[in-house]
Amino acid sequence: MDADQYVVVDVDEAEHERFLASQVALTDAARQLVDATIRTQVGAEELDAVRGELDALVARLRTSQLPGSYGVSLTSGGTFRNYGNAVVGKRNAVAPPLEVERDPAGRAWSHFALGAAYEGPPGLVHGGVTALILDQIAGEAAAAGGTPGMTGQLNLRYERPTPLGPLSVEAWVDRREGYKTWVKGEMRDAEGQATVTCEGLFILPRWARELVDEETKARYQRTGAGDAPGTPGD
Amino acid sequence: MDADQYVVVDVDEAEHERFLASQVALTDAARQLVDATIRTQVGAEELDAVRGELDALVARLRTSQLPGSYGVSLTSGGTFRNYGNAVVGKRNAVAPPLEVERDPAGRAWSHFALGAAYEGPPGLVHGGVTALILDQIAGEAAAAGGTPGMTGQLNLRYERPTPLGPLSVEAWVDRREGYKTWVKGEMRDAEGQATVTCEGLFILPRWARELVDEETKARYQRTGAGDAPGTPGD
Repeated sequence: MDADQYVVVDVDEAEHERFLASQVALTDAARQLVDATIRTQVGAEELDAVRGELDALVARLRTSQLPGSYGVSLTSGGTFRNYGNAVVGKRNAVAPPLEVERDPAGRAWSHFALGAAYEGPPGLVHGGVTALILDQIAGEAAAAGGTPGMTGQLNLRYERPTPLGPLSVEAWVDRREGYKTWVKGEMRDAEGQATVTCEGLFILPRWARELVDEETKARYQRTGAGDAPGTPGD
Repeated sequence: MDADQYVVVDVDEAEHERFLASQVALTDAARQLVDATIRTQVGAEELDAVRGELDALVARLRTSQLPGSYGVSLTSGGTFRNYGNAVVGKRNAVAPPLEVERDPAGRAWSHFALGAAYEGPPGLVHGGVTALILDQIAGEAAAAGGTPGMTGQLNLRYERPTPLGPLSVEAWVDRREGYKTWVKGEMRDAEGQATVTCEGLFILPRWARELVDEETKARYQRTGAGDAPGTPGD
């Protein structure tokens, strides 16, 4: 990852917002399609007919498209966009997507629901999907506390099965040292019981250390979440 | 997870295969839609028009559908189907899907490619997506070796960034004790360099211990992969 992979798109903010609403609505429809594709019991002829029309829709969307993945962009108005992200991306139908709340004390959390597309054992969330979501939330907690980083380690303990349906997740900065931030987190079922707990280590990459200001640098050196009130990460 | 969540569907195998080809083709088209939805740059009017037609296709698929998630089914002919699985499910557009090869010595591996839908940092695979895939492959290695289990722990170390594009993953049974199987695994980039390594602990749930035969029980008690030639798990 290099800094030049951040594309600055110079578009009018209002026009951007108009596009965004349509993009988000299309992505929500794509999530419905993913769910329906897993659960449908219609016959082969109808499946083939639907697929033919779907192929045509995909071709229309591809008449103008980015050459590669979405990346992370920053509009001229300063809006940070990671809409392609596999967990929180508004334009990524693989993402549930999670709407994440953040506290500058170094805490992030989300309430969400997972359906058929996230299944592992029958009726249960795939163990790897809980890992995917905890990685994202733990990284957001580190960033919210003003000490962002890339995942260095992630250790997960599966306490009990995670049922499909309404869930919540929360993570908080446990301690800091150098450019390292340790974060703890939990996935919880609808009753609030922890199903999976984790500890993650997030490290600011070397190339990024030269880009941060002195105040941010100092924040990494303090130990313990309580000593580092921090500022919002994004 | 209870045993009765495994639905035995009594369908003719040939008819099933005819349906499967159409279901798989539709799911592949849905994956294309997910990718195109992230990358498209067509205008708002066209996005809205495509969404309207997509909603109609979803409604056609939902005229007959399973009441909940796919689960895991077993046909009358003995075919094991986990087509809804978030990593390997042939009918799940969230899944890449991985085609997994297995060795009864307790090893599983796969070659695959990840596109825009699996992005975290710009151009890179989301760290949680590597965890998702490693969890699945490690579980399959345990099962391939004849000692299946549910994930109890998963510890991941991120050695270097994982680029989007062609990748491979491999996992192998490291040791066994009681109903526990420890598995090690690696995600590798196109050059074969390990990007993420893991160790997972897989535990046979209590309810399942009464269902396994004496030969399988004995397999769990042996220590070390070399002492347990095992049999294919699924």
